[in-house]
Amino acid sequence: MKPTITAFECSPDEGQGLARDMRVRWAFEEVGQPYDVRLISMKGLKEPEHRLRNPFGSIPTYEEGDLVLFESGAIILHIAEQHEGLFPNDVNARARVITWLFAALNTVEPPIVEWEMAQYFEKDKSWRDEHKAIIERNIRSRLDDLSKRLGDADWIDGDFSAADILLVLVLRRLDGSGIVEEYSNLAAYVSRGKERAAYKRAFEAQLAVFEAASAS
Amino acid sequence: MKPTITAFECSPDEGQGLARDMRVRWAFEEVGQPYDVRLISMKGLKEPEHRLRNPFGSIPTYEEGDLVLFESGAIILHIAEQHEGLFPNDVNARARVITWLFAALNTVEPPIVEWEMAQYFEKDKSWRDEHKAIIERNIRSRLDDLSKRLGDADWIDGDFSAADILLVLVLRRLDGSGIVEEYSNLAAYVSRGKERAAYKRAFEAQLAVFEAASAS
Repeated sequence: MKPTITAFECSPDEGQGLARDMRVRWAFEEVGQPYDVRLISMKGLKEPEHRLRNPFGSIPTYEEGDLVLFESGAIILHIAEQHEGLFPNDVNARARVITWLFAALNTVEPPIVEWEMAQYFEKDKSWRDEHKAIIERNIRSRLDDLSKRLGDADWIDGDFSAADILLVLVLRRLDGSGIVEEYSNLAAYVSRGKERAAYKRAFEAQLAVFEAASAS
Repeated sequence: MKPTITAFECSPDEGQGLARDMRVRWAFEEVGQPYDVRLISMKGLKEPEHRLRNPFGSIPTYEEGDLVLFESGAIILHIAEQHEGLFPNDVNARARVITWLFAALNTVEPPIVEWEMAQYFEKDKSWRDEHKAIIERNIRSRLDDLSKRLGDADWIDGDFSAADILLVLVLRRLDGSGIVEEYSNLAAYVSRGKERAAYKRAFEAQLAVFEAASAS
């Protein structure tokens, strides 16, 4: 059965692959699993039908028969359990990759989302720059630690895994800030992710949705 | 083999069960798994020995033979996979519980941690109250959605599970704010968690550590 995910009909990132459906698309492409996409408008996120899929009203969601999931981390973990290629076979190595799924989303991402939100919702505040500096200090603290742990390895823990999908795309949320570029190994890590054929297919697929929406 | 976790030698929450070792202690108590605790000072968090356990230098970590994990969500998932009692047996129900582990940590918790951090690091700022109001609006937006989904159920998805451990303890971080109490079903949900015998044993164990540290 082909699973169905949800994605923005007209993504606020303008097809730059920053919306969270990119994470799930990349995972599907890595394991060679075809999928369908249900496009949702901003208004549609608030509809009861979508709230049944995700009570917090965000994308992506995952539907496969009776099973409905949300949270990109949980969806990627589910895909990794069902297919070869995103989790190592060794049980301890697999537990470590799961640790990195949570680290990407609960330790690395939160200050980055805070930084994004501040740019939208605090842009008219007199204290905007002062707050931004505090958030950026917190982001650098996380990236200092991440950069030290990555060292000169290609991927975060052994071979390429589901954890690298999340970490690369979380770091990509800082595109344009110059912050990731302060860490040459992290910048190279993001580039390495973007060079994967599966990444490129996923990126093209989400960009095509945005281009179709803006042409219409 | 008895696993070893790390916890604060002298917890900044003063034994109120808000530090993240409480999550893992509660999980162990639910499944009846004894564990050892390695206590760490604030200075110890920065030591290379601890950074090998957790590159971000926080607690808890989990050691069992050669396996070293960090991130409370990943540790709880690991415990739930190894023991009966924290995951449902049905494969789809299990995937939904995992969704809620990620939702607790990636959707509900981030604005709550932001609120805590703001109280420490922005207390001398003139814009403190204005920023706090923005964060509290974001917290209420998450809790509105969570409260609607919980409805009058006892637990978030079917029987008590690992997801309830994380959600209850994430909501407890708002203790004293009065925010959870605005949602009678969420307040009752937290109370229900705290009434469990396993919660009480875990709470007493972490409190005893703080009391020993403050007596010495």
